[in-house]
Parts: sequence; structure tokens; C-alpha cells
Amino acid sequence: MSTSTSLEKFFTPRSVVVVGASSDPTKLGYGVARNLLEGGFPGTVYLVNPKGGALLGHRLYPSVEALPAAPDLAVILIPAPAVPPVLETCGRKGVRAAIIASGGFRETGPQGAALEAACLEIAQRHGIRLMGPNCIGLVDTHLPLDTTFLPPPGPPVGDIAFITHSGALAAAVIDWARGQGFGFSRLVSLGNQADVNETDILPVVAADEHTRAIAMYLESVGAGRGFVETARGVARRKPIVALKVGRTEAGQHAAASHTGALAGQERAFEAAFRRAGVLRANTVEQMFQWAHALASQPLPRGDRVLILTNAGGPGVTAADAIAAEGLRLATLTPQTRQLLRDILPPAASLHNPVDMLASASPEQYAHALRLGLDDPGVDMVMVILPPPPMFSAGAVARAMIPLIQTADKPVVVVPMGDPLVAEAVAHLRAARVPEYRFPEDAASALAALYRRAQWLAVADQPLLKPVAAEAAATARALLAADPAPPGGWLRPQTVRGLLAAYGLPTPQEAEAHSAAEAAAAAERMGFPVALKVISPDIAHKSDAGGVVLGLEDATAVAEAYEAMMARLREAFPQARLEGALVQQMAPPGQEVIVGAVRDPLFGPLVMFGSGGVEVEGLGDVAFALAPLTPADRTHLLESTWAGRKLAGFRNLPPADRAAVEEALARLAQLAADLDDLAEIEINPLNVLPEGQGALILDARGRRRP
Amino acid sequence: MSTSTSLEKFFTPRSVVVVGASSDPTKLGYGVARNLLEGGFPGTVYLVNPKGGALLGHRLYPSVEALPAAPDLAVILIPAPAVPPVLETCGRKGVRAAIIASGGFRETGPQGAALEAACLEIAQRHGIRLMGPNCIGLVDTHLPLDTTFLPPPGPPVGDIAFITHSGALAAAVIDWARGQGFGFSRLVSLGNQADVNETDILPVVAADEHTRAIAMYLESVGAGRGFVETARGVARRKPIVALKVGRTEAGQHAAASHTGALAGQERAFEAAFRRAGVLRANTVEQMFQWAHALASQPLPRGDRVLILTNAGGPGVTAADAIAAEGLRLATLTPQTRQLLRDILPPAASLHNPVDMLASASPEQYAHALRLGLDDPGVDMVMVILPPPPMFSAGAVARAMIPLIQTADKPVVVVPMGDPLVAEAVAHLRAARVPEYRFPEDAASALAALYRRAQWLAVADQPLLKPVAAEAAATARALLAADPAPPGGWLRPQTVRGLLAAYGLPTPQEAEAHSAAEAAAAAERMGFPVALKVISPDIAHKSDAGGVVLGLEDATAVAEAYEAMMARLREAFPQARLEGALVQQMAPPGQEVIVGAVRDPLFGPLVMFGSGGVEVEGLGDVAFALAPLTPADRTHLLESTWAGRKLAGFRNLPPADRAAVEEALARLAQLAADLDDLAEIEINPLNVLPEGQGALILDARGRRRP
Repeated sequence: MSTSTSLEKFFTPRSVVVVGASSDPTKLGYGVARNLLEGGFPGTVYLVNPKGGALLGHRLYPSVEALPAAPDLAVILIPAPAVPPVLETCGRKGVRAAIIASGGFRETGPQGAALEAACLEIAQRHGIRLMGPNCIGLVDTHLPLDTTFLPPPGPPVGDIAFITHSGALAAAVIDWARGQGFGFSRLVSLGNQADVNETDILPVVAADEHTRAIAMYLESVGAGRGFVETARGVARRKPIVALKVGRTEAGQHAAASHTGALAGQERAFEAAFRRAGVLRANTVEQMFQWAHALASQPLPRGDRVLILTNAGGPGVTAADAIAAEGLRLATLTPQTRQLLRDILPPAASLHNPVDMLASASPEQYAHALRLGLDDPGVDMVMVILPPPPMFSAGAVARAMIPLIQTADKPVVVVPMGDPLVAEAVAHLRAARVPEYRFPEDAASALAALYRRAQWLAVADQPLLKPVAAEAAATARALLAADPAPPGGWLRPQTVRGLLAAYGLPTPQEAEAHSAAEAAAAAERMGFPVALKVISPDIAHKSDAGGVVLGLEDATAVAEAYEAMMARLREAFPQARLEGALVQQMAPPGQEVIVGAVRDPLFGPLVMFGSGGVEVEGLGDVAFALAPLTPADRTHLLESTWAGRKLAGFRNLPPADRAAVEEALARLAQLAADLDDLAEIEINPLNVLPEGQGALILDARGRRRP
Repeated sequence: MSTSTSLEKFFTPRSVVVVGASSDPTKLGYGVARNLLEGGFPGTVYLVNPKGGALLGHRLYPSVEALPAAPDLAVILIPAPAVPPVLETCGRKGVRAAIIASGGFRETGPQGAALEAACLEIAQRHGIRLMGPNCIGLVDTHLPLDTTFLPPPGPPVGDIAFITHSGALAAAVIDWARGQGFGFSRLVSLGNQADVNETDILPVVAADEHTRAIAMYLESVGAGRGFVETARGVARRKPIVALKVGRTEAGQHAAASHTGALAGQERAFEAAFRRAGVLRANTVEQMFQWAHALASQPLPRGDRVLILTNAGGPGVTAADAIAAEGLRLATLTPQTRQLLRDILPPAASLHNPVDMLASASPEQYAHALRLGLDDPGVDMVMVILPPPPMFSAGAVARAMIPLIQTADKPVVVVPMGDPLVAEAVAHLRAARVPEYRFPEDAASALAALYRRAQWLAVADQPLLKPVAAEAAATARALLAADPAPPGGWLRPQTVRGLLAAYGLPTPQEAEAHSAAEAAAAAERMGFPVALKVISPDIAHKSDAGGVVLGLEDATAVAEAYEAMMARLREAFPQARLEGALVQQMAPPGQEVIVGAVRDPLFGPLVMFGSGGVEVEGLGDVAFALAPLTPADRTHLLESTWAGRKLAGFRNLPPADRAAVEEALARLAQLAADLDDLAEIEINPLNVLPEGQGALILDARGRRRP
């Protein structure tokens, strides 16, 4: 029995026991009993309270032992210290799924944590799957089943599954949703996640036939890459929108390298969500607005939006919103414009936004919408509907709904106002057409549809693994041989060896332990050369004065060697100065940074961005999970100025983008292969003009702590 | 009689005539008559319709001539071609204020524009101030007066004045506002603005005693600097929030310089609003949410926010929202934490966000709020209120309201939900406490309060004019003597002269017309030097190969001169090559760009940002109106990485920020003084280490077209 199958029992039990059912209506244990008994649940409900008696016409059993049969699901809402023995009893009785709604566990401190551990141990011993503790339970609006204590009516019935790490937020959202245009299929509050977490439950709510989109309120994820893989699998079939909170508590990473300083929880989540096809919302409201649009509308084939309006001002506002979301205004074909001309007054604007003027009738709205949907240059339509002065907004909505329901392009409607558009809103909601009071929310939802379409187009891309498997063994041997302690910086030779093993473009170089050796090495490889100190104790070599560039002859090399050593001996009397690398230099190119870092949650991440000393200040960087997909690699290059300017800009000639692509794929594979690497950073990678490749000018790496 | 006084008549007429009053309830002319007659207007209403008869029990006069007296205000809603004669009659009758609500004017094409011009001519001849045409008129909710045709009830009564360029948006907002927590003092739709525009009407609505904040929906502004000055005057007394739409139609500027390419309508509006103290909202909803908070709450003394909540999840969401708005989480004093400990359960979190747990009672909410308000480390408070499981949200709101109303710090409340928090929302609205369904909107409103407080602190700063007045005469003479045609590039000598006249740090330089002259000049000023071609036909000198840097001796200078001329003769056979500048070079510093450009609407703007070739790609630039205030200058430096890194970063030593400040003030004064300059750009300005000044490495300027 797979995990998903066993967890399905939580939502489709034939019988439920409420342990802690209370006949006091101010108690939460009363609420749970009431919701199960009066909420339409079609199975058997058992109530347990040691005091016995009856509740809402149902017998109160004194204990779980006393039940006539083993229920499929137990909902436990009694003081924390009493939970472990009850769970033990449940296990013996044959219960295999339990929700511990009670608080008083890990969230309260070490004592509570011990209680929670005890519960988990008991559960695992008996094969019980646990939800909670410290949660408000779950709802299936279609069965229906409501194990929460929230006051009726339960959440509106619908097609959005909601998984949340915050019970209070679930309560607020259930209440708030009553005034919105969407409803829930399943809703689950996970609490402390002693056992079942968001990754476990995601496929379960997704598998429900009533679920058409999934919303997740996440404070973190338990499984890292496991979450990514699970979500990726689910997202291929059903859209996932997540709100990840706790941005302000971003992880405390060692900031020794630029990559390390710039990485962190936020970047890692972004990269993980992008790979998984999880759309990341910024607010609770946005999460549900997106989920509703995704659940009800077809996906667009492109990013071109047609705006239909009956007034200029709201049309301009809508156009601004479209642009702010990175979507484009569609250009209508001359044919469409001619057909619009035939049905609209002469003063109407036939360019996008199409302004049909204040006199626009329901028929004109519907006709124009049909023409827009038929235009091959239109991918999506936003209909703006301020209260029409001559007609009712409701009539306009009614005229458009049949077209929207049968369209193969997404349509969203913006009835602007309140009482004057209430009828229109009601019609649109009944017809499952996404509607918003303002164009910005509508544009944001269209952008979510477009991003999902874009992701689905690349969802099945394989991982890039350009390097043969043997490289990993070579690299592991090099890493093992390096004297760096856990968390320590690797010797430059080791880093160079790792990069070379993965076919990354390391320059010709040689180690020198005297000025004469340096000069001789330089003669062999040709000028100019660079000289870089070798020291395990100096991390920022160029900051410390341990790098000299552009040495043009042997004398210069020898002099630079002596001067550098003298300088460093004075500045860092404690540092071990082992010599210097003499390194081939390349003609000037575009300097970029390519790095990788191991995120504690999601594992290896690749970074790309503007190189040099200013990378941290400008923040022109992007991250992706390693290994990369082709789409990840494109994202790294196209979401950064460092990547875009590889195509050339003003007097900057085009650089060898293919060489950067190759370097990204190889470094990503290296980072994914080598568990013992905390971070590795090529800074800068010198990207030469098109066709001439790229050359690593400096790199460093650190062992995992 | 000042403009404001004469325009006040629009809002406080003793008598109004409706020309085009219709007894057909489907006609807009009926709506206007109805709103005036039944909306409580305390003055006399005359109705005019050539057909005569009666309407709503009032006589319909056949013409304006036939009225027994001259009304203070005429509202005209008849077909456009009939408007001019009616306006003529109004003028003769003695009407001095008219609203032309009818459409069919400039917005429909040349014929309509001619009609509009005719109306304006008639109005000016008779001393009539005109509002519209093509507008929905105005409302004063307190008099009350409603000249619109919108269906009743009119807009909710309140303290926000609303000025709008879109009538449809006014209609939508009036309807929408009924479901929100705010109301209007005055509302005016300006239509085509043949006469009265947003700048004229702003002080009028601001002067109204009922107005406590002003919201503006702007498609542009008419008066440029006039708007800035008027708004700045108003904003000193009452807050202004504006939504400027049409971002996607940004102006088509000549993109010959970086400054020109990066300027444009958006940047100019940003700079103008910052100077004027107009808070720029991104959406209609945000505009009113901000205006409501500004109208009802005291301003904070700092940016430190305390979050009170009864649940962790919503608290984290709120903390994220605070951070996203650039505000800080307040740190409570140990004393406050001790006092909180005394009233809250042991498991409560006493750090910000203060999580009082689900059991938090109305008394605990109120007590904790009082402690927070008393803490000197708290500047503002956000109270998060998901439906409390044990208490009513309404009771919590009631307990807090007296504290909020008497607090000298702003407080906003976030009742999360719908029916379960409806009572709380109603209490808060009645008490004029800003309330939002989600923390993001609340954080955005707090940030608006903080930005207004920041602006007020610098609102009276004088303009920076460090250069003596004589410099302008010198510079004008130089400009006049330059052979550049309108729109043409000035000679480098002229640009250098302009900069020198304003005390900007130009390098030593000399013109040379042969290799020998160049070498001799270089010998005089010392090495290294740069060589830059002098040609009126080559704008991007370095792109074209017309700049050679770092020449270290006389031979190198002579060779470089010959080679450059040969190269340019071949590349640009048509270009006039007049010689080369030999220029002193400086030690390496931080390169920044300092530019100025003349915006068609707002006049001279100053730009500051990252210099070099990548300025356009990175977009690390900021703009301000010239001349600058000290606050503008700080903004330029602190909102850009180029400015922030002047303080030093990693191995980048601190640079001479004072020299940059001086250069900004001087270049701004230059740009403000010289009307005939289209743009001038120092790129780069080489900023030397602290105390060593800065040096202009290249500059160019263009005459106004």
C-alpha cells in the first residue's frame, strides 16, 4: 500500500471517532462532534468522553476500547499529556489514521516536544499515520467530511485543494472565502507535522477528482528535493500555487563566497519552485485568485492579451497592469478591426485596448469578445466592465458567459464597482468565470496562467549531464586528497583539478615556489600571465593583494613574485605562503560569475550573474537547482543582465554564450555529483567573443562543514 | 479674485441650472436633475429643456434666457453641437461656472476639437470657468451637491477628496466605495480639461474643511512644474496620493545619450511626485487604502512596526509584508516584554510579532496594544485578528478602539475573514480605524504614512544653488557661440567650458591638431594622458574608436594620434576630424554617471547612477528635478548602488562622496539655468578616494531642438 493510498483514508473514512467530544458548546470538542454529526458526513461517527452520556442525540462512549468497531479515523482533542495513552489504545483497537488537533506539543517547548515524540513512536509502532498535533484538521467538501471545530457553515464547496501550515490561516481563509468566488475540494491543516507533512499530503489532495488546483501555505518544506520531485509530478497534471512565508527569517548561511552570501532560503525556494512548476504567490489573496483562474480557465498559447472596455481610463489602467505583469498587448488583425468597426460606434477605439464607449451594449460586448477570441493574434482576453451607464452589468455578463465557457482561450472579467456590478459578479461566479474588482488582480491571474503554460512546455525536459560518469570518481579522489578540513577552503590546485575533470575551461598554469621558477613557467606558456598567491589562509586573494595581472615579460614576473611575497608576509604574518600560481591570461572578454552552493534544504544550487567585485552590490544573479534543465539554464541567462549582455550591447561585442551554457551545465553536474563540496565559485569566468570560448580566471571551493 | 476662489463656486453654488434636463428616466439628463433635486442640495435648481413641461414636480424652462435669475453653476448635458450657443446664452445671462458633461468633443476627432475650442473661446469671453467637456461632473457630499447622472445613492460621505481624469473610473469607484470603509468629501471628474485642470482644482478640494486627504487619478498633468509647486503647497497641509496611469505609453525621447535613453515620462513623474510630496500608488485600491489611513491616523515618528497577533502563521505573513514594504520590525524593551509576560500565557511569544495565542481575549488584545503604544521603540502597530476561536472579533475590536482613537501613533487592524469578522469591521469603520483583510495592504498603508512623515521632514528644504549667478551669463555666452544647430551636439570645448563655469571638476586638457602638438601638450601636463578625437559628427567617441587612454610617454601620444586619425578617416569618411583633445588622466576611482536632461513636461531632470557602458543595461540610476534639494540629492545617492558603494565595499575603498554631492548640485543648477540645453552628461565622473575629489573623464551636451 503506497503512502498516498494509506493517507487517502484521512479524507474518505467510513467511520470517525472523536476523542474529547464535549457537550459544552463553548469547547472545541463540541465543535468537532457537531461538524461531523451535522455536516452531512455519510459514515459512522463515534464520540468518546470518559464522562459518558450523550451529545446531539449520540451516545458518548467512555473510551476508544469501548467502541463496537475500529474506526478508520480518530480525531483527538484532549489535553496533550492525555494523548499518548489514547493513541496507544487507538493502535490496539486497530485505528490506522489519527488527527491530533490538540496543542501543547513541540510548539510549547522541550516537554511538549517529548510528548510529541512519544506520540510518533506509538503511532509508528502501530502503523498509525498521524496528522498534527496542533492543527485544525481537515475538510473534504464533497464527501462531505469536516473534522475541524470551526463554526458552520463549513468552507464553500469547490475545486481548490488547500494545504496549510497555519491553522489560524485556514480558519481565516475559510471565513473569507465565503465572500469570494471560489470554493474548496479538500482542505488540510498540518500543524506540527510530527508524521504527515506537506509533501506526503500533496499527491493525496491532488488525486481527488474534485480538485482542479492546489493552493499551499508553506512555512517551509520537510523533504527538500523530495518535495520538488513530488510537486513536479503533481504539477504536470494539476496546477499548484504556493505562498511561502518567513522571508524575513532567511537562512543564516556562511557568507564567505559571493555565491554563499547571495544564496539563502529565499533563492533556494525560488529555484525549487521553478523546477517543480509551483507558482509562487506573494499574498494569500493572490494565491487563491491564481488558483481559481487555473482551476477554471484553459491555458493560453502565448502572452498576448486583448483588453475590451467601455471606457478609456479603466482601459489604460488595465494596459498598465498587463505591462507590469510582463505580458503583452495583443495586436488585432486588420480583419478583426474591420469587423469591430462594423459593430461599434465610429468614435470607438479599435486598437487594443478596444474601447467600445460608454454606450456598449451586452450584444456589443459579446460580439467584440467573440471577434477577439477568434483573432489568431490574441492569446487571452481581459474584459473591463465599469457599470455601463445605459445597461446593467449583469446583462453584459450574461451575454458573454456562454462564449467564455466554450472558449479555448482564457477570459477574465473585471466588473468594477460593488452594488451596481453585484448581479454581474453573481452570474460570473455561478458560471465559474474568474472576476476581479480591479484590472491588476486580473492581469496577475492571466500572468499565472501564462507562466503555467510556459512551465508545462518544459516540464519534461531531461537534466543536463554533459560530463561522462568517470569524472565524478576522479573528482572525488581529488577532493579526498585535499588537506582542507570540513568547512575549509580547498587548495587552488584541487579546485583547478575538479574543474578540469568536468571539462571546464581552466587556463594553463603552473605552480612556482620562487621568482625564478615563476619566470621560467611564464616563458613556457607565453605572455601575458597572472601571478596568484597560493595560501590556505587567504580567501579573498585579490582583496589581499595576492594577485598581479598582465605581466608582460620574465623580469616583470620575477619582480612581481618577490614584491607580492614581501607584501603578504608583512600584511599576514600568520599566513602560510606556499608559492604562486603562474597563469595564462586571456584577451579581455565579458566577466561573469558561475557558482554553486549546497543549500541545507534543497541541496546543490547553481548561481549565474555579473562577475567581479560588484556582484553582491548589484545583485544581478539568478539561481537554479543542480543539475540543470535546459529551461533552468535559459532562465539563468535571460533573467540576468550578465546573461542578456552576452548577446552584445552598444560597443560590447557578442560573447560566446554557448561556452557559458556549457560551463553552467558542467559546473551544475559537478556540484550535484560531489556531496562533500559546500560551495565552488568561478569568479570571474572570462567569456571571449563568439566562437572563442571562455576562460576561468579565478575559482575557489570549500569543503562541506 | 484668485483662481481657487472663483473655482470654489463649482462646489458651493447657491443655484444650479441643468441644461438638458430630461423627463425620460433612461436619459442622463434625467439623472442629473434627479440627483440635484432629490440629493439634498440646499440651493435652487433650475431645469431647462426646450420642450418645456415639468420634471419631478419642477418646471422645465424652455431656455437659460427664460430663467428668473442667473444661476451660479450650469450643468450642460445636450448634444455637443448645441453646446456653444447655450454657453453663449449662459455667458450673457451671467453664469460664471459651467460643467459640460456631454461628450462629442476633442475625444472624437478634429470636428469635436473645433467645437471644444469654440466653447473655450465663448467661456473666456464671458469669464466663465469651464469643467469638462466629456466628464461626469462633481460631488460635494457635505453640502450636499451632486451634479452627476449616476444612480443614487451618491458616494459615501467622508473625508477623501477625489480628482479624476476618467469619469468611468469615478463611476466605478463611487459604486465600489460603498463596500469599503471610507467616504468622499469632494469628487470631481475633469473630462477633456478644456479649461479647468487637475492643478487648478487641487487647492480647491484641499481647502474644503471636510477634506483630510486627496486622491488623484491622473492620465497626465497639464502644468508640469506648476503642478509640482501647487501640489507641494497643498501637500504641506494635506496628504495627496496619486495613481498616474499610462505607464505603457511612456514618452518617445531621443535616446542619443544614456541620460536621454533612461529618462522618459515615468522617471519624470517619479521625480516630480517626490519633490511635490505626492505619494504614488500603484493601483486604485491602494490609492484609497493609503488615503484613508492618511486621513485618519497620526503620522509615525519612525519605521518600526509592532505586530500583535493571536496566531503564528498570520504573524509571519505580516512580518513578511512589513519587510517587503521596507519597514522594520520594532524591538520591544525588556520592560514591555516583562509587562506582556504578566498578562499573557507562558507559551505566548513576547518578541515581535507578539503572538498572544488563540486564547487571546479582548482584554489581552487591548492591554498588549496599550503596552505596545507605550513602548518608545514602537512607531506603529499592526493588529492581526483572525477569527478568535473563543471570543468574537467584534469584542476585540471594541476593546481596542478607544486606545486607537487616542493614540499618537498609527494603528491599523487586520480582521482576517468575512462573516466572522464582519462585526469587527463595522466597529472599526465606524471608529475610522483603517482595517484590511490581509496584512499586505495594512503594511502598504503604514509605509505610506511613514513616507509622508519622511517627506514632511524635508518639505521646506531650500533648493541647492552653490554656484554664483554670474556663471549663468558665462555659460549662456559659451552656448550661444557654439556652432551646434538646434538638437545638435555641442563641441567638447563648449561642454568643458560650461562645466568649468559651474565649477565642475574638468581635467587639464589641450587641443592638438597634429601628432607633434599632442605630444608637446602631453609633456606639459604630465603622464599618463588620454587622447580624444574632436569631431562634431561622432557622438559615441569611445564606441567609434576615437578615445585612447593611458598614454605613458610622448612617443606613445604621437603614435596614437596618427593611428586614431587614420582609423577614423577610414571608418567615417564623412566625419569632420578637427583634431584631438589631450587630457590629464586621474588615478583609478569609482566611475559614476551624472547627467541632466530636459523633460518636455517637467523641465530639467538630473540623473545619477552607475557609469560606463553598462548604465543602460543595469538601469542603476535615479532621477530628480533640477535644481536639487538636499533630500533629492540624498535620494539619488542612496537609491542607487553607484551611490551606496561610494562608502566603500569589500576591497573597494571609500570614495569622495562629498565631491559627488557637489557635482550633483552644480550640474543641476547648470541644467536649470540653461534653457537652451537639451541634455548634458558626465560619463564617467571618476570619483577618487575620500578627500581627493572627482574628475570628469568625459562629457557631452546637446542643444535643445
